[in-house]
Amino acid sequence: MHISPPLPCDPIKYDFNYGAIDIESFDFNLWRKFTSQALQSSHRELLQYGNPQGELQLREEIAKYLRSSRGVLCSSDQVIITSGTDNSLQLVCELSDTNNKSIAIENPGWDRAKSIFQKNNFKITSIPLDKYGICLKSLKESFSKLVYITPSHQFPSGIVMPIIRRQNLLKWAKNTDSFIIEDDYDSEFRYSGRPIPSLQSLDNDERVIYLGTFSKSLAPSLRISYVVLPKKFLNKYKHNISMYEQPTSRITQKTLQLFMTNGYWERHIRKMRKIYGKKYNTLMKSIVNHLNTNIRIIGGNAGIHVLIEIRNGMCEDTIIQKAEMVGVKIYPTSKYWINHSNFKYPIFLMGFGGLSENLIKEGIELLGNVLNNN
Amino acid sequence: MHISPPLPCDPIKYDFNYGAIDIESFDFNLWRKFTSQALQSSHRELLQYGNPQGELQLREEIAKYLRSSRGVLCSSDQVIITSGTDNSLQLVCELSDTNNKSIAIENPGWDRAKSIFQKNNFKITSIPLDKYGICLKSLKESFSKLVYITPSHQFPSGIVMPIIRRQNLLKWAKNTDSFIIEDDYDSEFRYSGRPIPSLQSLDNDERVIYLGTFSKSLAPSLRISYVVLPKKFLNKYKHNISMYEQPTSRITQKTLQLFMTNGYWERHIRKMRKIYGKKYNTLMKSIVNHLNTNIRIIGGNAGIHVLIEIRNGMCEDTIIQKAEMVGVKIYPTSKYWINHSNFKYPIFLMGFGGLSENLIKEGIELLGNVLNNN
Repeated sequence: MHISPPLPCDPIKYDFNYGAIDIESFDFNLWRKFTSQALQSSHRELLQYGNPQGELQLREEIAKYLRSSRGVLCSSDQVIITSGTDNSLQLVCELSDTNNKSIAIENPGWDRAKSIFQKNNFKITSIPLDKYGICLKSLKESFSKLVYITPSHQFPSGIVMPIIRRQNLLKWAKNTDSFIIEDDYDSEFRYSGRPIPSLQSLDNDERVIYLGTFSKSLAPSLRISYVVLPKKFLNKYKHNISMYEQPTSRITQKTLQLFMTNGYWERHIRKMRKIYGKKYNTLMKSIVNHLNTNIRIIGGNAGIHVLIEIRNGMCEDTIIQKAEMVGVKIYPTSKYWINHSNFKYPIFLMGFGGLSENLIKEGIELLGNVLNNN
Repeated sequence: MHISPPLPCDPIKYDFNYGAIDIESFDFNLWRKFTSQALQSSHRELLQYGNPQGELQLREEIAKYLRSSRGVLCSSDQVIITSGTDNSLQLVCELSDTNNKSIAIENPGWDRAKSIFQKNNFKITSIPLDKYGICLKSLKESFSKLVYITPSHQFPSGIVMPIIRRQNLLKWAKNTDSFIIEDDYDSEFRYSGRPIPSLQSLDNDERVIYLGTFSKSLAPSLRISYVVLPKKFLNKYKHNISMYEQPTSRITQKTLQLFMTNGYWERHIRKMRKIYGKKYNTLMKSIVNHLNTNIRIIGGNAGIHVLIEIRNGMCEDTIIQKAEMVGVKIYPTSKYWINHSNFKYPIFLMGFGGLSENLIKEGIELLGNVLNNN
């Protein structure tokens, strides 16, 4: 007797994975060229242990770039190379006041940040968002002295904090002797309007610890991020420096520095901004055209993800399953909320960096078919 | 009036830095070749986030190598790639029993390990060494359930733990439901006698967490080390895995894997063993020939450092200053001891990996001149 196998679900062809970048546009020839230059025997010394803070020339390039693109005022001495934002946050935890281990975080916010603070035994207060980002009134009431925020493209909501809220946050920090961790994780990508200056650039009182990364803008697998410390933290950092090991390969650091010094970094960012801008527009258009169910788009105009709230009556699990059956993967956001239970409609994270425009179009059309047929 | 500048001290030409490796023998052509292969556009996917545990193929190569060279029995599933031994220890801290955060460490021992356990709020008990390594009687009396040791080349003393002590340690661990962190940091280099099997290879009860690194054997700046977890820890690790980010570049991981898969790793180790063996012999001969002051050599026959105790009546600081005046840098060891004060003579760490045989000879001769002229 011949039994047909059960029909498999479609394999995932349309993965709206948030962390994914556009790998088609990475210039392998160029990266190989600079890696080769870094790997010349005249650079033998790069094989030995390096500066725990990271290579000086790379820190200089980052300081220069941050000044011109984000108004961040710092010297290379304030820049510390890390292997990712989790590593950056770990460093910040170690430099924080050990007598007052408490932190305010955004709700919703990046779950990994919360884990890292928890791991470091911080008391965590979650602060709700209003339409301008973290709610200042709640923050004040929390009596926290340290806050972690993503003001330029709030994760995951996408809210861009207006300048007046930024100024008020800085005032709060100054008046209460508090510090702000500003995670500017995807600030390179903004598709319309004037960019809002980073908090660090508005700060006259050394209240901002600025975090950035090459994970979204270049490639997550290279593992290069950075912290910009206020000058007043440098003594403590230098005092502890023998406790730290630089986690990023010196060869990789040298390669990135050569890429930047030779002007390819700015060129790469301009190119990627165009590519992601087009993908963003394609995603928006596709949602409007194909998701005629009741949809609310949250955030947007920046970064490489948006949120969509789906109001067709289906629950989170059903929507994910239905999408997977047509090869579409979308990501639930409940884990980013503390006390998520009172949500009326499920909200999904749609990363568009890793998909081509065609795949975005097709994926959203397929998603529309299963959601609209309710 | 013409005033001559004060005579400067000689710049450091003979740096017996412990962490330094022989960079002259690194095969840049070969490494460039495999980096180029890793950076082919057919490997585009390597740009995205990878497995937090590290690349599967690299973990397979490491498991294979550990089995053949150190008798370590493990599958690739038990291997976790890290960015250095400090990162490995951080991971072990996070996987340890949170209800009993205490650790026994060797005294003397690696100061950085102590810092990492302290940072993670472990209660630390320091255990003295006897001539076979960590003192089992003191360990038993400490009631610790977790111990960190460097049995194959105790750091810094160089003691190689004999097999009988290893077996007794494993018995202790089994009988008391305890765990042993075995740091096998430079096991590749042993210059005479049969290698002693790793503790992990003698362990029938999953009591050993094995740590290794490419920092001594290949290059510290590549930032690749690893942990081999006992199977019973895997569930906890997998459960927590979403909290971890792999800190090492996937391109670097791929490069190392290609280097290993193509047979160059074993060849490299054989070559380096010869080179370091010669350097070791040169150092020993030079000490005997030129340091006719009362010297005791501690440890040896393995790794890329030895200790020397200098009994010429000078204190640690004086010896370091006198050495520096002739361009020789040697490293004090007091920081590796807890309660160092009752030492009669100063002991110095002499790393020989980074110096040529000629520089070793000259450096020791110069050191002899300043020490013997007392």
